[in-house]
Amino acid sequence: MERIGWIGTGVMGRSMVLHVLQGGHPVSVFNRSRDKADDPCRQGAAWCETPGEVAARSDIVFTMVGEPSDVEEVILGGDGVLARIRKGSVIVDMTTSEPSLAVRIYGEAKAKSVFSLDAPVSGGDIGAKEGTLAIMAGGDEEAFRRVLPVFERMGGNIAIMGGPGMGQHTKMSNQILVASTMIGVVEALLYARRAGLDLNRVIEVVGKGAAASWAFNKLGPRIVKGDTAPGFAIRHFVKDMGIALTEAKRMKLALPGLALVNQFYLAAVAEGLENEGTHALFRVLDRMNSP
Amino acid sequence: MERIGWIGTGVMGRSMVLHVLQGGHPVSVFNRSRDKADDPCRQGAAWCETPGEVAARSDIVFTMVGEPSDVEEVILGGDGVLARIRKGSVIVDMTTSEPSLAVRIYGEAKAKSVFSLDAPVSGGDIGAKEGTLAIMAGGDEEAFRRVLPVFERMGGNIAIMGGPGMGQHTKMSNQILVASTMIGVVEALLYARRAGLDLNRVIEVVGKGAAASWAFNKLGPRIVKGDTAPGFAIRHFVKDMGIALTEAKRMKLALPGLALVNQFYLAAVAEGLENEGTHALFRVLDRMNSP
Repeated sequence: MERIGWIGTGVMGRSMVLHVLQGGHPVSVFNRSRDKADDPCRQGAAWCETPGEVAARSDIVFTMVGEPSDVEEVILGGDGVLARIRKGSVIVDMTTSEPSLAVRIYGEAKAKSVFSLDAPVSGGDIGAKEGTLAIMAGGDEEAFRRVLPVFERMGGNIAIMGGPGMGQHTKMSNQILVASTMIGVVEALLYARRAGLDLNRVIEVVGKGAAASWAFNKLGPRIVKGDTAPGFAIRHFVKDMGIALTEAKRMKLALPGLALVNQFYLAAVAEGLENEGTHALFRVLDRMNSP
Repeated sequence: MERIGWIGTGVMGRSMVLHVLQGGHPVSVFNRSRDKADDPCRQGAAWCETPGEVAARSDIVFTMVGEPSDVEEVILGGDGVLARIRKGSVIVDMTTSEPSLAVRIYGEAKAKSVFSLDAPVSGGDIGAKEGTLAIMAGGDEEAFRRVLPVFERMGGNIAIMGGPGMGQHTKMSNQILVASTMIGVVEALLYARRAGLDLNRVIEVVGKGAAASWAFNKLGPRIVKGDTAPGFAIRHFVKDMGIALTEAKRMKLALPGLALVNQFYLAAVAEGLENEGTHALFRVLDRMNSP
């Protein structure tokens, strides 16, 4: 059975590695703050002092960290994964990160005869907890097939989308959709409320037709209740939109809808809403439209 | 059995009145261009020379015309519906039109002891043909209950949303959702194509999660095939967005997402795409992003 390394045991990573442990794999684990690794360690994971140490003990190393700079550090840095991983092993970055960084990691790994996959997820903390994440992978088919049984511990909707970076690009497409869909949800509810409609009734009726979306049908009722807890936190979403806009610029692609929505999410951060769910965008446009 | 009057036998209206005829109601019909009423007349509808003549022969008069100005003319105009309809009858405007006009018609009708409902639909030409429209009504419950059996010939998802104008306001909420969702769909597909992804695969994977929408899942594959036939034509959608923006302004409500998307749809009209489906927005942003 493949020996698994796991780097990053935040809200998402912790749930995910627990599923891997339940699959019976030997797991080595590292996290910047050690206490967040207590759960997996109690379930049998071996604590390591550095990402490199994790890599030295593993056949497949997963990373699930915060920013692209964290990905770069734990994989390409000093005592990082690539410094100590053995030939023929696989690195799987599940962080939502830069497609171009994924391509770079793939190249540096390949030069050392190491496989690399980018495999960001969607489904949020609940998907991670329930093992129902969508996983969008980029890299070599061979590596994907090898990692697939482990992915299947974490999620259901799992696909290889193409070569290196294509998992990240797919996730960016996902986030571009989420951004504009969300401002539509927010504006439709603001309009309906101002018009004096019963919002839950609007969601019920309108949510069955051509205006339906996961965001409207699932997050709409939470907005109506004033429940803006994440779900998926705005601070993460702002990171993702920043990556998408940078990559789009690099590809010479103007995305005016995304650019507009991104600005309102920056306003959400300015208002201190960074730890609220993405649907707290409602509060920004509501405040903007209030005396 | 209630005697039905039907004014407006365009693409939508023709399919709808045919369902009413199949229900066995006696139907009187008027349309600006008579040849478009040939189908219902062959199925037993009696042709009338004016909207007023229709009203004189009917217990419930439906209007399904083009612009708010057409609604105003056929209902409130010279030989219009309200001039000749009898006390206790019902006027049902199913055109997507101005909420404030619906309120005005309701008031003028009430002064003559006539009921009035605004009842715009969603579901497009296919929904009209198949009798599966969503119907969002505003007005008196009593009138709604009386008309409901006729509505049930035309659609499935039928609701009274509140007093006069509330059907129209609900439809506006629907269109606000459609607008921003569509620019998200378009930008996600443009990004994915530029990144080199297989678009159908992206739709398959991403369309199962938090980014899913009716527009992405149903219209996305048509965009990929280059099939921008309506569906719902851009010229109608531009009318609807114009009404929504005007009503929002009247209610002192800024809707930046809707305003942005509206501009790109105006560009679509400028490019001659007014008779294409709403998803032809892809062609506007594609062209804008091409050498």
